[in-house]
This record gives sequence, structure tokens and C-alpha cells, in this order.
Amino acid sequence: MAKTNPGRFFEDYTLGDVIDHAVPRTLSGGERALYHALYPARHALYSSDAFAQSCGLAASPIDDLAAFHTVFGKSVPDISLNAVANLGYAEGRWLAPVWPGDTLRSTSEVIGLKQNSNGKSGVVYVRTRGLNQRGETVMEFCRWVMVRKRDLDAPAPDTVLPSLKPALAAYDLAIPAGLDFTRYDFTLAGEPHRWGDYAVGEKIDHVDGVTVEEAEHMLATRLWQNTAKVHFDATNRDDGKRLIYGGHVISMARALSFNGLANAQMIVGLNAGAHATPCFAGDTIRAWSEVLDKAETPAPGVGALRLRLVATKGGEPFTLKGEDGKYLPHVLLDLDYWALMPV
Amino acid sequence: MAKTNPGRFFEDYTLGDVIDHAVPRTLSGGERALYHALYPARHALYSSDAFAQSCGLAASPIDDLAAFHTVFGKSVPDISLNAVANLGYAEGRWLAPVWPGDTLRSTSEVIGLKQNSNGKSGVVYVRTRGLNQRGETVMEFCRWVMVRKRDLDAPAPDTVLPSLKPALAAYDLAIPAGLDFTRYDFTLAGEPHRWGDYAVGEKIDHVDGVTVEEAEHMLATRLWQNTAKVHFDATNRDDGKRLIYGGHVISMARALSFNGLANAQMIVGLNAGAHATPCFAGDTIRAWSEVLDKAETPAPGVGALRLRLVATKGGEPFTLKGEDGKYLPHVLLDLDYWALMPV
Amino acid sequence: MAKTNPGRFFEDYTLGDVIDHAVPRTLSGGERALYHALYPARHALYSSDAFAQSCGLAASPIDDLAAFHTVFGKSVPDISLNAVANLGYAEGRWLAPVWPGDTLRSTSEVIGLKQNSNGKSGVVYVRTRGLNQRGETVMEFCRWVMVRKRDLDAPAPDTVLPSLKPALAAYDLAIPAGLDFTRYDFTLAGEPHRWGDYAVGEKIDHVDGVTVEEAEHMLATRLWQNTAKVHFDATNRDDGKRLIYGGHVISMARALSFNGLANAQMIVGLNAGAHATPCFAGDTIRAWSEVLDKAETPAPGVGALRLRLVATKGGEPFTLKGEDGKYLPHVLLDLDYWALMPV
Repeated sequence: MAKTNPGRFFEDYTLGDVIDHAVPRTLSGGERALYHALYPARHALYSSDAFAQSCGLAASPIDDLAAFHTVFGKSVPDISLNAVANLGYAEGRWLAPVWPGDTLRSTSEVIGLKQNSNGKSGVVYVRTRGLNQRGETVMEFCRWVMVRKRDLDAPAPDTVLPSLKPALAAYDLAIPAGLDFTRYDFTLAGEPHRWGDYAVGEKIDHVDGVTVEEAEHMLATRLWQNTAKVHFDATNRDDGKRLIYGGHVISMARALSFNGLANAQMIVGLNAGAHATPCFAGDTIRAWSEVLDKAETPAPGVGALRLRLVATKGGEPFTLKGEDGKYLPHVLLDLDYWALMPV
Repeated sequence: MAKTNPGRFFEDYTLGDVIDHAVPRTLSGGERALYHALYPARHALYSSDAFAQSCGLAASPIDDLAAFHTVFGKSVPDISLNAVANLGYAEGRWLAPVWPGDTLRSTSEVIGLKQNSNGKSGVVYVRTRGLNQRGETVMEFCRWVMVRKRDLDAPAPDTVLPSLKPALAAYDLAIPAGLDFTRYDFTLAGEPHRWGDYAVGEKIDHVDGVTVEEAEHMLATRLWQNTAKVHFDATNRDDGKRLIYGGHVISMARALSFNGLANAQMIVGLNAGAHATPCFAGDTIRAWSEVLDKAETPAPGVGALRLRLVATKGGEPFTLKGEDGKYLPHVLLDLDYWALMPV
Repeated sequence: MAKTNPGRFFEDYTLGDVIDHAVPRTLSGGERALYHALYPARHALYSSDAFAQSCGLAASPIDDLAAFHTVFGKSVPDISLNAVANLGYAEGRWLAPVWPGDTLRSTSEVIGLKQNSNGKSGVVYVRTRGLNQRGETVMEFCRWVMVRKRDLDAPAPDTVLPSLKPALAAYDLAIPAGLDFTRYDFTLAGEPHRWGDYAVGEKIDHVDGVTVEEAEHMLATRLWQNTAKVHFDATNRDDGKRLIYGGHVISMARALSFNGLANAQMIVGLNAGAHATPCFAGDTIRAWSEVLDKAETPAPGVGALRLRLVATKGGEPFTLKGEDGKYLPHVLLDLDYWALMPV
């Protein structure tokens, strides 16, 4: 019997299955330093222990998206090794900060199944949870992927589509214990704009761009132990290109958004996300944001901003979809998230 | 007098010489994070403090090969700066785990000398030891290199060939104190295959491939403070290529071998190794393994597997040598090692 | 109102202004590991806790130039985002070691202003200080940059040129508390040459070269949170080239200088510096040094060496300027600094 992991195919998933993913991982200051070397990340709360302490936290946590990538990466060998496409995200919540020294593992529950009409593939919906060494859930999110069938004659499962919120409400968001922005230092944070300065519908061009290199996206993807071979093996596609892990684009765009959203300190909710077109080395990633919603929170001095973050390669800022309703060809990413900001 | 180090030439070595290598190095979570960014390393014991603790260790050690590269790198300025070729390894033993915060230094003893018949170079055999800040030997290995003579008229030394074991026996292997695989979590480790599931002679194709970039292998080589200029200076060869440090290929192949050997957790013995052909940026590294031997160990639940690890660039899996007995041109590495695995 | 930072223009600076720079940063073993992966850094005091302790320090500090890059990087968004050129450095002093876990922030005082005769730009002189989480100044330096005017009709400020020392005197240098080289281990440090072995006027060719890759210099520049877009965005220049951050060249040259100056352990003074010509990916950096001065210090066994460090891309060693007094086209960097060495 072959000892290598062929990955799961569509018929290998059953509604309600809980899959414990392998290879727990301890994160340290090393992962944080690499995150800051790979992305122009400058949100002060993830850069400075002293700043985080002035906001009521014990120290600077591991970057919110580094925690996401770690939890996500563990699910790849079980969920998306044979995936044709990563179709969407919903109900992503950061439930507790991850500190240097914490060990994360992941588990996924199959919450929906739908075979495609062509009978060759189907959509698998999972809710993935990341847990720390104390068994506390530090984050969770739903995603759905299109997965090939191995045996085209395998019977189709009953179609079950999960009921997923189009967006989290403000009361769904978990605010880290102790977070307090009443003594927030806007000078050290880098911008004067507070929650009250942002209006729903406002759009921000983040101006800066970063041209991506092969070595960088592979370092990132390996760091999160994401094993999807399309990211590493130039012989895998006919054109010799390596597909850049979508999470690399997310982190790059989020870091670029510092310029205009420096005070959107912590990501606490992921409402939706689409990787509209593939990214390749040599592409220059830029980003723009739109304020979708605003909400108060019970934490002192802390407001929540719902933001659309769009990453592009070329094209004009603020362009997103064509008249046909489809993403324009230069749009890499359309992400909908909640962040915490001083009021 | 020139202050730069010209390196030693063949006539500068004397049998029995002990050379203390320079630049001790403290390893931290930073080196571990970089190791995991450079290679798709996923063996759970080196990824998670919690997993390592469930196996009886105090924490997750620095990766076995990272310790090897650190000890090896220190020896380069004294042993192989003027080397024409790195000819072989033998009797490599990992004697104690290296923990984050440990400081390693290296020392080498000249154990053999043989001038080549052309009178222009000779083979130097050394036993290199790595020591931690408490003076404990954490690993040792023999290697032999072909070194140029500076003065062709220098007299040839008496030929002394060291008596080296073709392979370590199981009782030569040092098992880390406290290691206990009786409560081993195969789900978290990533594969169900235990020591009893592997048969001598079995071969495993590790399937995945990684295309190597210049920036990556230079980051790796510098991290181990290996100064051999062929790895860094594109003007050094007529074809403008930089030679990839053999240790980069070793680590890449070992990491790829996770897929099929996820439970071969700790490398504890290096029996032999040959860098069959040079590796360059743009090459796609793949790997296959063969089970050469099996042995029990006195540690609870711990078995030992002797493995051949072959790294290739192209070619069919399981092909190694031609009818002439020489390595096929796509074979990069042929490594013979012992690893510890749950029984 | 646009929320992104347009950077300051020449008319936005006023003599005596103190600008607190944003985004404090905690440095850990992660940053140290990355520094050693990016540069062939081998000075033992920054590589080994045990070696640093044998020299009277509590542990191995963060590399002197990593501290400089961190402090410098914070000043970029306020000082040099619209700079045409980074013209010079003076009076740079390392005042206290930076330890893993320390958090650095920066502040700059405008100490000089001079509008150019063309009325389109001017020179801004600042003294930048780096402070740790206890408010202690860990380093300071002056630099002057040419900055564009936004409004060409803005009135010229009174010209004020600061009085800057052409070079620091030995008594200006801060010696780290406790530093003691009387038990210095030259074998572990890598070279036998002590302070007494260097003569004023002596020149050293550091021999080795490193060919630079795009991914490397971007990792480095992001790590110091230096946001100048010319380093990241290949669409920014007509030739599609990304300009390599001058600090990357400084660190590469300093690391290469180990070969011949292995005992020039700690940089404590920066007298002057010029980035003579831009560096691009694909360039092979080499370095040579000249001993400019020597001085005793009050610390036991500690001498000071004033060194010129020249980084080049091609050309003969020890060539610097042409008959016209201008830097030769292969000269990247001309740096004048003080280092501490065992007597």
C-alpha cells in the first residue's frame, strides 16, 4: 500500500465528519520576525510589546493573519489537496490572541456537501477551528472548496448547504480580554484617523505597491506548513508558473492597507473572501479599501469597522467588477472583514 | 601580512591535529522559524512543543539537520575553503538534543590523510564534533574532502586511512534521554504508518517537488555561517551559476520525505552520504526513500529505521545508478541515515 | 481628506521641530536569525551568548547595524519619503546595547535647513534618536537628505547649517557597560589579529563577494519597516529596477569585512557615510577597508579602530575616486566608522 497521502476526494467526505488535522505548531518570535520580513506589516499592536501593553494586552500577539494562515495551513492536506478551487470564506472569528510560545492545531467539521451537476466534482463546506495547547479555540472560519471525485461512479451525497451568515454582526465579534483603547497613542500608531473619522461608503487607495518574488511566497507558504504543490513545483503547470498562495495576497494587501488604515489594529472577523484571479511572481500587488459598516463595541475606546479590502495587479483603484458582474481581470482578492479601531 | 583567511591547503594538515573552529552560535526560535520557512519541514516533534512533550522531551528541539548544518558550517573555513570536492560522510551521530538558547561550537580532528597520485591535491579525513555551552558533545560526524596543495613541492604525508564503519549499528545510536513513543499521537503526526509497517527493501516515492530559488539557498547557507564562496558569488564560475550548498539539498529532501515517512521523527545516525551532482537554482528537487534496515531500541515504543534518501532533479523515481555503477545524472544526493519511529 | 500619508515636503520642516516617529518595534531572536540569514555576519559577540558573556555582557545583543536599521527605518515615513537623495551621515553613536525583547522607537529633531538655489528642493538635516522601552537612548545619528518642495512658491526658510563633527573623537564613543576584552578568545572569534596588529593607513581586501537577489533586499528592508517605495515596486522606475536600500549594502559590506576584521566586534561610532552609486539585484558586492585612526579606550582590553569601509560592484580593490575627485562608478558605499577591538 502506498504510504504517501493522496488527499481526500469528494466521496471521502461525510456530513458531520470531524477531521483532526496533523502537525501542531509552536509559534515564536521567529515566526513574527518572518511575517514582518515578508510583508510591510506595521500595525503597532503587532509590532511592539510596549504598545500592546498600553492597549491592555500582556504583550504583542502573533499577527492575526499569521494565526489564520497557521490554522488554515494545517487543514490543507485533508481539505484542499485535491481541490480545484477555494470558493469562499464565511463566519471567520478570532476568539483569543495567540502569544509567542503557543502551540496551534486545527480541526475541521464537514458542514455541507453538494455534488456538481457534471458528476465529476463537488463542493465541500467545512468549519475549521484552531486550538491552542490549552484546548481553547483561538479562531474559527468556514470555507468551501471544489474537490474532484476519484471514482466518478461513487454515489452523490444528499445535498446539504450550510446556513452561513452573509456577514458577522458586531455582537458576533470577540474582543480580546483587557483590550482598552482609551490611552491609545495615535502618534506611535502612525496616523491620526480614528473610528469616528471613517464614514460608511468611504474608499481609500493605499497607494503603495510590492512586486512579488518566487522566493518570498514560497518562504511564506512553507512557514504555515501549507503543502499544496501548485505553490512550489514549477513543473506542475504547463506554463512553468507557480501559483501564489492566496494567503500571501491577503497578508500583503492587509499590510499595504496600513497606509490609510494604520489604526485598524486587530482583525477579529472575516465575513467573506474571494480569490478572484491567480497571482504570480512578478505581479505588483496594490490595495484599496471601502468602509462597509461601523459598530460600537463594549470594550473601552474600541470601535469596529467593517472593511472591504481589494488587492489588485494593475488597473485603476476602486474598480472591482465589470458590467457582467464578474471581477475585472486585475482584481486578485476581495475580502470582507471586521477590524478593531480606537473610537 | 595579509589579514584575510586564505584557508588551509593539503600540506597544512597533520594527522592528529585538533582544530577549534571559530564563531560559536546561539540558536533560538528564530533559526527554527527560518528552517521551517526554507524547507517544507513538518515532522511534529520539531514543530510543536506540546507534541515533543507528549514524547517525553522538555520541548521541541532545534531540527536535527539544523544542528548538523550549524556544526558543519563552522568547520568550513578550516576544512573545506580550498576543497575541490566533499567526498563522503560516515559515523554521524546525534548525541543530545539542541534546545533553543543553546550555543554551539565545533572542533575537528584530522583522522586520515592521503595525497593523490597527481601530487596536486589530497584527501583529508576529519571527525567533527559539535559542543554546546556546557561542553557536551551534541553531535559528531566524519567527513573527507579533497583539498588542493598550495605548494606542489611540499612532501606527501604518510598515507593514513581511518577505519570507518560502513554503517552504524543500532547500538551505536544515542536515544535522547526521556524519549518515549508509547503515547504517540499518529493523527497529530500526520500518518498512521508505524515502524512495524515498513519492510526492509520497501521503496517510497515522496511525490512532491520544490523548485529552488537563489535567494532561498543563500539565506540557508548564511544562516549556518557557511562561507564557501561558490554558494554566493555569481562571478565565481564561468557560467555565472551559484552552486547550491549540499546541506540545502539534504534538508529539502528530508522535508519532502515527510510524505510517506511522517513518523521517522528524529535523525540520530548518518551512515554515509554522497552529493552525486551539483544543484542549481531552477532545479526542481524530488525525493524517494528505501528502507535499508530496521532495529529495536531500548527506549519505550521507539524503533529505528535505516533509510536511504535519494534527492533527484528529474528522472524516474527509484532510479539511482547506471550500468557503469555511476550515479545517474539526475541524482543529486544519496544519503544513508537512521531515524527513530514509533513501533 | 485623503487618509494616506503623502510624506513631508521641504516646506513642512521647521528648525527645532521634534518629530516622534511611528510604529515602535520589539526585536527578538527572530530578527537576529533573519539578520544572520540575510548577511554573512559572523562577529562572535553578536553570534553567541556564551562569547558575549565571556566579554562581560549579559548576552549577545541585537547586531549593531540591525539596531541602526530599525531606528532609521522608523524615520523614513517622516523624513525621506519624498527625498531625492540621502546625502550624508555624521555623529552616529551607539549608546547602549539592544537586547532581544527590547522595544525601539525613534524621534528626530530638525537641526538644519537649506533651500537649494533652484527653488525646487532643499536639504533637511536631522538628528535621529532611537529609544528603548525604558526611554533610554540606544543610538543617535545625524543625516541630511534632499527633499522636494510641494509648493514651489513656499518661502525659503533661513539657511541654518548644523555644526557637525567631521569625525567623532575617541572620547565621544560610548563603551557598553561591563565590556572587557582581557579574556578574549581569538580562536573562537576567528582571527588572531588584535588592535596592535593594525596600522593607520593599512588597507584590507575582504576578498569575498555576494551577488544580491531581489527577494533578499526586500525581506531586509521590510524587516526594518522601511517603507520607501523605490525598494519594493518594480513599476516605480522606467527601467523596472528596484533600488536596493542603502542599509542592505552597509550590512553586507560590514559582514564581508569579517574576513580580515573578525575582531572589530562592535560598531560604536558612525563618522560619515556616502551611498556613492545605486545597487541593484544581480550586482556582486565586495568590500575593502582602510584603517583611518586608532585610539585607546578606558575599558579593559578594549581598543578602538576607525575604519573606512568601501563596498563595490566590480573594479579593483582600493580604488575609490577618480582624478576629478568623484567616486568611481563601481563604488557603492564609503563608510567611516569606529569599532571596538581587543588590544
